[in-house]
Amino acid sequence: MDIKTIIRDIPDFPQAGILFRDITPLLAHPQGLTTIIKGFASGFADAQIDYVVGMESRGFIVGAPMAQHLGCGFIPVRKPNKLPAAVHQVEYALEYGTDKLEMHQDAFPSGSRVLILDDVIATGGTAAAAAKLVSMAGGSLVGFGFIVELDFLAGRKVLPDVPIVSLVNY
Amino acid sequence: MDIKTIIRDIPDFPQAGILFRDITPLLAHPQGLTTIIKGFASGFADAQIDYVVGMESRGFIVGAPMAQHLGCGFIPVRKPNKLPAAVHQVEYALEYGTDKLEMHQDAFPSGSRVLILDDVIATGGTAAAAAKLVSMAGGSLVGFGFIVELDFLAGRKVLPDVPIVSLVNY
Repeated sequence: MDIKTIIRDIPDFPQAGILFRDITPLLAHPQGLTTIIKGFASGFADAQIDYVVGMESRGFIVGAPMAQHLGCGFIPVRKPNKLPAAVHQVEYALEYGTDKLEMHQDAFPSGSRVLILDDVIATGGTAAAAAKLVSMAGGSLVGFGFIVELDFLAGRKVLPDVPIVSLVNY
Repeated sequence: MDIKTIIRDIPDFPQAGILFRDITPLLAHPQGLTTIIKGFASGFADAQIDYVVGMESRGFIVGAPMAQHLGCGFIPVRKPNKLPAAVHQVEYALEYGTDKLEMHQDAFPSGSRVLILDDVIATGGTAAAAAKLVSMAGGSLVGFGFIVELDFLAGRKVLPDVPIVSLVNY
C-alpha cells in the first residue's frame, strides 16, 4: 500500500495558506493501521521497546496499536488537568504563546526503553516536549515515529539525537 | 488477567466527591491492551464489523487497536474544528451547558456496519451522540464497547437498542 496516495490534501485548514495532510482516509482503509504499524515495527525491529508513548490526541491512534503489536505498555501524554495522579509537566513554545503537556510520574519504571509516536511532526515542539517528559521520568528514549514528516519545517532539528522513522515525507 | 485489580481508584478527581477510575495502569501493563481487545473481539465475534468508531480522545486508545485487530477501518469522532473536511455535527447536553461532536460526512459508505468504542460509559451522552453521527452518515450500528461501565449512572438507558459489551462494571 502506498500511504501517500491515500492521505488527503485539504487546502486552507486550519487557516488560510496551510495545506493540511489529512490522514483520516488512511485510518479508514481496512489495511491502513496495519500498514502504519508494520512500518514502525520494521523501523524499530531491534529497539527492545518497553513502552510506547503517544501524545493527545492523534498520537493515541498510532501509539496504542503499536503498543499492542509489540506486547508492551502504552503511556498517554496529555494536556493539563486530564491525568488524575501526580504528573511531570513541560511547557513549550508555540507560534503565539505556550502550551503544556503532562505525563504520570509513575508511568513507567526508571530505565525503561521508550518509543514516542505521533501522527505528524511539524515544528517538533510537541515531540520535543514528550521527550523531556520521558527524560524527567528516567526513561531511555529509543526513538521517534511519525506517519507524516513535514520536511520544510525541519522539526527533527529540535529533537534529541535518536533514530527517527517517518513513513511519509513532504 | 483481572482488569479490575489493575484499574486505579483516585478519589476527588476531577472534582471533590468523584471517585475516578484510572485506566492508565491497565494501558501500561504489557498485556493490558491485548486483554481489552480480546474482550471486545469475543463480545462481537459474529458482528461482521466494517468500521470501528472511537471518540476523542481516550476512545482512540481502544478504537484504533480494535480496528487493527479486526483488519477494518478506524473512524475518529472529534470535538469541533478538528476534522478538516465536511462534517456531521451533534450537540448534546452536559450537566451544565452543552458539548458538540463531529464526524466526517464521508467517513464510511452508507450501509456500513459500525462498532462504537470508548474507555468509559458514565451518563452515556457522548456514546449517544456518536450513535447519532453514525446514523446521520447512513451507518448500521452493531454495538457499543466500553472498558468501564459505571452502572449507577445508568448510561446505557440513553443508548439505541444494540448489544453493549462492558469489560468491567462498577
